[in-house]
Amino acid sequence: MNSTFKRRMHEIVFEADTPAGKIFDVLLLLLILLSIVIVCIDSVESIHARFEYLLYFLEWTMTLLFSMEYGLRIWLTRRPTKYIFSFFGIIDLLSILPTFLSIFIAGSQSLLVFRSFRLLRVFRVLKLGRYLGESRQLIHALRASRAKIIVFVSVVLAVALIMGTLMYLVEGSKNGFTSIPRSFYWAVVTMTTVGYGDIAPQTVIGQSIATILMVLGYGIIAVPTGIVTVELRNSKDKSAVISTQACQNCSKEGHDLDAEFCKFCGEPLK
Amino acid sequence: MNSTFKRRMHEIVFEADTPAGKIFDVLLLLLILLSIVIVCIDSVESIHARFEYLLYFLEWTMTLLFSMEYGLRIWLTRRPTKYIFSFFGIIDLLSILPTFLSIFIAGSQSLLVFRSFRLLRVFRVLKLGRYLGESRQLIHALRASRAKIIVFVSVVLAVALIMGTLMYLVEGSKNGFTSIPRSFYWAVVTMTTVGYGDIAPQTVIGQSIATILMVLGYGIIAVPTGIVTVELRNSKDKSAVISTQACQNCSKEGHDLDAEFCKFCGEPLK
Amino acid sequence: MNSTFKRRMHEIVFEADTPAGKIFDVLLLLLILLSIVIVCIDSVESIHARFEYLLYFLEWTMTLLFSMEYGLRIWLTRRPTKYIFSFFGIIDLLSILPTFLSIFIAGSQSLLVFRSFRLLRVFRVLKLGRYLGESRQLIHALRASRAKIIVFVSVVLAVALIMGTLMYLVEGSKNGFTSIPRSFYWAVVTMTTVGYGDIAPQTVIGQSIATILMVLGYGIIAVPTGIVTVELRNSKDKSAVISTQACQNCSKEGHDLDAEFCKFCGEPLK
Amino acid sequence: MNSTFKRRMHEIVFEADTPAGKIFDVLLLLLILLSIVIVCIDSVESIHARFEYLLYFLEWTMTLLFSMEYGLRIWLTRRPTKYIFSFFGIIDLLSILPTFLSIFIAGSQSLLVFRSFRLLRVFRVLKLGRYLGESRQLIHALRASRAKIIVFVSVVLAVALIMGTLMYLVEGSKNGFTSIPRSFYWAVVTMTTVGYGDIAPQTVIGQSIATILMVLGYGIIAVPTGIVTVELRNSKDKSAVISTQACQNCSKEGHDLDAEFCKFCGEPLK
Repeated sequence: MNSTFKRRMHEIVFEADTPAGKIFDVLLLLLILLSIVIVCIDSVESIHARFEYLLYFLEWTMTLLFSMEYGLRIWLTRRPTKYIFSFFGIIDLLSILPTFLSIFIAGSQSLLVFRSFRLLRVFRVLKLGRYLGESRQLIHALRASRAKIIVFVSVVLAVALIMGTLMYLVEGSKNGFTSIPRSFYWAVVTMTTVGYGDIAPQTVIGQSIATILMVLGYGIIAVPTGIVTVELRNSKDKSAVISTQACQNCSKEGHDLDAEFCKFCGEPLK
Repeated sequence: MNSTFKRRMHEIVFEADTPAGKIFDVLLLLLILLSIVIVCIDSVESIHARFEYLLYFLEWTMTLLFSMEYGLRIWLTRRPTKYIFSFFGIIDLLSILPTFLSIFIAGSQSLLVFRSFRLLRVFRVLKLGRYLGESRQLIHALRASRAKIIVFVSVVLAVALIMGTLMYLVEGSKNGFTSIPRSFYWAVVTMTTVGYGDIAPQTVIGQSIATILMVLGYGIIAVPTGIVTVELRNSKDKSAVISTQACQNCSKEGHDLDAEFCKFCGEPLK
Repeated sequence: MNSTFKRRMHEIVFEADTPAGKIFDVLLLLLILLSIVIVCIDSVESIHARFEYLLYFLEWTMTLLFSMEYGLRIWLTRRPTKYIFSFFGIIDLLSILPTFLSIFIAGSQSLLVFRSFRLLRVFRVLKLGRYLGESRQLIHALRASRAKIIVFVSVVLAVALIMGTLMYLVEGSKNGFTSIPRSFYWAVVTMTTVGYGDIAPQTVIGQSIATILMVLGYGIIAVPTGIVTVELRNSKDKSAVISTQACQNCSKEGHDLDAEFCKFCGEPLK
Repeated sequence: MNSTFKRRMHEIVFEADTPAGKIFDVLLLLLILLSIVIVCIDSVESIHARFEYLLYFLEWTMTLLFSMEYGLRIWLTRRPTKYIFSFFGIIDLLSILPTFLSIFIAGSQSLLVFRSFRLLRVFRVLKLGRYLGESRQLIHALRASRAKIIVFVSVVLAVALIMGTLMYLVEGSKNGFTSIPRSFYWAVVTMTTVGYGDIAPQTVIGQSIATILMVLGYGIIAVPTGIVTVELRNSKDKSAVISTQACQNCSKEGHDLDAEFCKFCGEPLK
């Protein structure tokens, strides 16, 4: 009986296909959302001053509930270590730990915003298949263009370092470029077209260099965009053009839609 | 006779194919544009002080004219409820309501800028078919990439929340990061490369985190761009420019839409 | 003889294929560049104070030279009116007019920067064919996506107007949102991710609206990018896929590379 | 023997395929990274004041080590002049020269950040083939779209010059637009969506022009993005994933690279 009960519980806690499982997941998501809001507004001085004890109480209630849920998940899963070291297992732990830590270290409860990652569960409740598929396609495209993106980011950072140093030499401390790290920070702010304006060139030469840097940053944004676009197209084309049929002889997949014979063993398909 | 008159009126008010209908629509558009300009300049203190009564009078004239037009549309259309709850029906109502509301609630006439949506009628007057088709294609592409865009925006907001909280812990109140919601606002300002500069990191660690956030925001703009580009290409490919007609002589396909003779055997097409 | 001389002069002034024509064009470009630099540095107070007479003299020398060149072009061309009303004809006139105007209206010589458009001649001197072809391809792609871009810009401006008005109601005059036009200006600054920071939201609701507007602006930049990319690809594909062959019977062009018969009249293609 | 020793040394210094060569390259990279960090933090006043002598000593140690490495490379390579004038040869020289120069010219050691380019060697240590290939593909795509990018940048700068001058005339010195070069700088800051906010339009006409400029800059970023995307796609398509092999039985083509049997007739592919 214990086994049947455990299996049913597993279905409710880990899956979202049954009505009970769906209700559990929706309640959990609302609770997570609420706990994030509490952490956020608790950081606002005026609200903290007025509702300190209420927010403190709510925070601990949330944490205890999440701790119980965490224990339940470990108990229900067949291979606990696999869950504990999975992505969601680590996130689940990170989302309760800071509250306990806050007993010893003041301010660490701010780290509870890690809970926002738990919201990724929302995709499971909605049309999970669809949304998970989409994000998998995105991740696939990003992974395929990883090497190109590393090259791109390296070049951007190297250019920012060189140009930042030039500005440090040209503008000097009196115009806010007090050190190379700070000038590098300015160069990144400029190249990425963020442009806070907390540091801005004052001399004519400085503004000329800044102009070049801006046009450069404005232009090379085209590069990562081009990379991701091409990869996304490819990952899309592949998933469209290749049939899901497996060869009955050698079980290999990846045949084209117009294939009539297995390209690995020569067996007629279908 | 009433029926014929109503039909003709319907043609003038709802369509833009006849000369009279076109004149009606152009006049309406000019009136809408004028009323938007009036609302806008009325909000400038110095102009409001000088022309208060004139602008007040014009505003009410406009509203009464639009109210009459709204009544006319309800009367002319065969199924009034369908018009009232259509996109343009709701916009038409929203564009007259605020003036009446302003009798009771001061300042609500600012909401009259909702009238700007009425300007979308302009596409009907110009080469409606063409422009409506283009915007339909855009909407189609955006809808097709909806799931990917939701995943993307969720990730952006989650990253902004985490990084904002980190900055709140690192920089603290004295540098403007007074609360988590405010730090989250800063993180969004930075990731989207807007960069007001009203809040800017001062410490070395803060500037390092900001640098990472900027490069991240600069890089991942590539993702929605890639998504929309791929979808636009697909929606374009579908509405293909090659006719599906096969030659009756040689049965070959792939003729252009303007082809009158088969390009392979010279036989007349059709 | 006059005719031969005129033909040779025409070759020198209007074309860049002969050595003499190339030297003429390069000299002209250097002169244009120099005159732009003069106008620019003349506007710097400290330089103007020191070199007033020299710069004044140089400016008039340039203008007289350009006036002579303008007269020469009118005299040499076979159909003067066609040149005068062509793109370069108007630019050439605009680049000498302001100096003469400055006798009557002080400050109008600043308009001489219109001369910078004359620098487009540079493409004729370099590898004209290639560069002109590239810019023609760009213009073609932009023209093909014109309708979509108009729809896009209209929607952006309408959203900026609505959101700006909302901010005007929420933030009010005390936070810098003194009127709807000014709030509209702020909304455009935010949506386009420019973010000067001269006006920035102060209230929590205002910052929330700003957050939405920023994410929106950050996201929809993908739309024009997608449009132009798709059009560029198409204009590239077309120029590759369509042969330049004209039918010997009906002279129509635009045949596919694999076409053996004219698709308009059925005549065999060479 | 000298020859064998030299060949082995060459393998260690110039290649990263043997364990010894890999260790040499990793150590070199760490040394470069360290030396860059030293140059950067040395520019921070407070750190410079405290660790002046230590940093000075470290800097000279690094430079002497790099000088020895530079000498070694010249001695080991078969054609020294080819190495000296290669990209890495020049970079290697530039990364030791400033320290020696700093004896004569104070402050020139800041130029040592040129060392950051030496970090490009990192790609050789990692999966060199792959990463070098990726960056070659990027460079190829950028080179192919060079002509279009020159046209694009020319137009952007011309528009910025014209609009900057207009702003100089409209806003004038009192609002920060003190000269045409400065107004041009502002126009570039605005068009590239950087938006420092150090100079911002104050008048209504100025803000209107700024609005147009921002929408323009926001929109035309699409152009370089489109160009690079199309070129990247092309350079990718060329290095196609479909083999050019034809079946010896049915002569059909279009087989995947991993195909061992014809997918149309089942015949083994060579």
